[in-house]
Amino acid sequence: MNMNDIIGKKRDGGKLNQEEIEYFVSGYTDGSIPDYQASALLMAIYLQKMDKEETFHLTRAMKCSGDVIDLSGIEGIKVDKHSTGGVGDKTTLVVAPLAAACGVPIAKMSGRGLGFTGGTVDKMESIPGFQTTVEADKFMEQVNTIGLSVIGQTAHIAPADKKIYALRDVTATVGNMSLISSSIMSKKLASGSDAIVLDVKCGDGAFMENFEDACILGKMMVEIGNADHKKTIAVITDMNQPLGKAVGNSLEVIEAIDTLKGKGPSDITELSLTLAGIMIFAGGKAESKEQGYEMAKHALESGEALNKLSEFIEGQGGNPEILNDYSKFPQHTCTKEIACHKSGYVNKIAAKAIGLASQHSGAGRATKEDTIDLSAGIYLHKKVGDKVSKGEVLATVYGTDVEKVAKSVEEAEKAFIISENAPKKEELIKKIII
Amino acid sequence: MNMNDIIGKKRDGGKLNQEEIEYFVSGYTDGSIPDYQASALLMAIYLQKMDKEETFHLTRAMKCSGDVIDLSGIEGIKVDKHSTGGVGDKTTLVVAPLAAACGVPIAKMSGRGLGFTGGTVDKMESIPGFQTTVEADKFMEQVNTIGLSVIGQTAHIAPADKKIYALRDVTATVGNMSLISSSIMSKKLASGSDAIVLDVKCGDGAFMENFEDACILGKMMVEIGNADHKKTIAVITDMNQPLGKAVGNSLEVIEAIDTLKGKGPSDITELSLTLAGIMIFAGGKAESKEQGYEMAKHALESGEALNKLSEFIEGQGGNPEILNDYSKFPQHTCTKEIACHKSGYVNKIAAKAIGLASQHSGAGRATKEDTIDLSAGIYLHKKVGDKVSKGEVLATVYGTDVEKVAKSVEEAEKAFIISENAPKKEELIKKIII
Repeated sequence: MNMNDIIGKKRDGGKLNQEEIEYFVSGYTDGSIPDYQASALLMAIYLQKMDKEETFHLTRAMKCSGDVIDLSGIEGIKVDKHSTGGVGDKTTLVVAPLAAACGVPIAKMSGRGLGFTGGTVDKMESIPGFQTTVEADKFMEQVNTIGLSVIGQTAHIAPADKKIYALRDVTATVGNMSLISSSIMSKKLASGSDAIVLDVKCGDGAFMENFEDACILGKMMVEIGNADHKKTIAVITDMNQPLGKAVGNSLEVIEAIDTLKGKGPSDITELSLTLAGIMIFAGGKAESKEQGYEMAKHALESGEALNKLSEFIEGQGGNPEILNDYSKFPQHTCTKEIACHKSGYVNKIAAKAIGLASQHSGAGRATKEDTIDLSAGIYLHKKVGDKVSKGEVLATVYGTDVEKVAKSVEEAEKAFIISENAPKKEELIKKIII
Repeated sequence: MNMNDIIGKKRDGGKLNQEEIEYFVSGYTDGSIPDYQASALLMAIYLQKMDKEETFHLTRAMKCSGDVIDLSGIEGIKVDKHSTGGVGDKTTLVVAPLAAACGVPIAKMSGRGLGFTGGTVDKMESIPGFQTTVEADKFMEQVNTIGLSVIGQTAHIAPADKKIYALRDVTATVGNMSLISSSIMSKKLASGSDAIVLDVKCGDGAFMENFEDACILGKMMVEIGNADHKKTIAVITDMNQPLGKAVGNSLEVIEAIDTLKGKGPSDITELSLTLAGIMIFAGGKAESKEQGYEMAKHALESGEALNKLSEFIEGQGGNPEILNDYSKFPQHTCTKEIACHKSGYVNKIAAKAIGLASQHSGAGRATKEDTIDLSAGIYLHKKVGDKVSKGEVLATVYGTDVEKVAKSVEEAEKAFIISENAPKKEELIKKIII
């Protein structure tokens, strides 16, 4: 077998077999296949596409390129949840305690933020004392006792995906369904849970800008997961405006706590209950996703999920007092408000622009090496559909660097579009693919 | 401008503009654009194709990546001739003296052989004393006095093409018309002649295996040349069997001399007269290619072309006595004959197989660093269409290494196909594209 022939086969629209795909993935990972051959193949794949079977083989080869986590030491059906990335998406912090409170063990590895999207690990680190680097034994023990642990990815998960993704990023070969779905699923399948619930974002602030593409991606990932004998369900959800009102690390944790107290924004609350309901169903604790939803709702209303969050924070060294004393979070030293320049309705809040503005306030990273300001971010007082009067405050930008906050305000201001008439309401949960 | 956007544009079927193409070519040549981005773009070009204008820009950018030879010190319309590469193709050694004898100045840079095709520079070096490395001044002076000089490529011609071709070779992106034609033409246009006659080989031993593809390539190169204000004419010729009877360096020079003595094989003679006629026409010394053909024929029959070859050899330090004394060429020390295993007609002589067999007899190189045996090669006593009896000699293999000659015989034997009936005669000159 040689790489030139494999590239030529795909270039001519041929179907790569398992051996050829494994040859490429292992050779590229160990460095015996050079970047320039890998990128030629990726472009051929981009343009000639891969079928379902090829995508399965690619996913499996990337999954097996590193550690495959064994969570068999944890009792029950472990359920993982993954979001394809959005702005203001703090659902993990709400959904995980909801599902855990209903008896679904959650043993989750999360990532850090990069660019305009945040990461769960960064958000959790705004809780004083909270540890995201935990030994495997302790991680599993905590799931067995408390039912929930979320840590940073420490293991050597899917190194092939890491290398291939970095190459795709600089060779205009990112936007192909087989490459996207295999990239996401290789990591999820290596992470060891028994079932996976995928939140596929769709809209301006998401990777998939239109509904049709999001459905294709969701379906492909469900098929990949099921082919690997993991129950996989995808939910297509709206990302045409930020999720909730808070964007930025500590701001989002506070909003998540508020949501578990029953005082969260309606979109976060609704999405969290839906996702948790599906996780409870996937984890075998409910007969249907509707029953799961009701169980999640009860866990929220009864305060059980908030208690679970408290146990979880304490279990990982964090101070649970923050649940009732938000002054214990990292504090901003400057704020600036964005006022509405005319009366009307909020027609649009460009999610990506808000994500970038939040990043530039200090809340995000441009490169992996950047440090972040955990207090920084943007709070949206108004959301799409809200009626506004001239001069009313649309949003507040928080941070510790006056210049960064000023730059962020300038950008965030442009994200708002005010119209005379109320806009059409966008469905939050667009489709569920089982 | 950035490379990722350029790749993305071509990936989506867009048309690259001059700036984008120049950005890629100069950036890749100077090393600021890495191999992996170049190969992704090449694959996108391969699959999405380039239109005429893009191909012109690519050719020009590669031409201008190195030296562009100035031949204005030579009087008259300089005409270059290029063959896309075949087996047994010694036409330059016949055509150049023919055209020069008719007053067309020939200032030609030629290459060395690699793989199964030979190179004019190697062939000339089988003439004792002949120098292929000549100073620019002396090169031009010889063309002004004798009318003809052929040297090895010493100048820094189209380095972008060299780098891009090497990358295409290992990324399955060789066989695209725009990439092939721009590669050939960038070097020809940088070489300084005023007109170019292209011999586009077509068949089993050629880069273009079928007639239609050869026509597309020929037409594209003619258009590229004309767009650069160089009169360009392409001739599509057969390469389904080796050209002439001799394959190998000194064997081919001897056959070229014989041809100028009027004793050459009919295919070499006919093709040489046709190409020379077109060169004489392109060089403004004849009103039509037909008139040029007659002039070339006269130069051959009168012995003027043979005299020109003698002057040319002497001018470059070679011993002109070889014209009448072939024993002065490097001599083989062993030979082996290939006998016919059954009576019938020669139906096919696979050109590529003969080229490889000649290479393995010692006449060719596998890598640029290999040394070659100038005496080695294959002489075909029979050609396609010839009637043969069982036991008759089909070919003789020459060389200085018994093992290599034996290996070569084994390979060359398989190249012959003998059939009961006479095969259909293949047209040698298939089309002329002006």
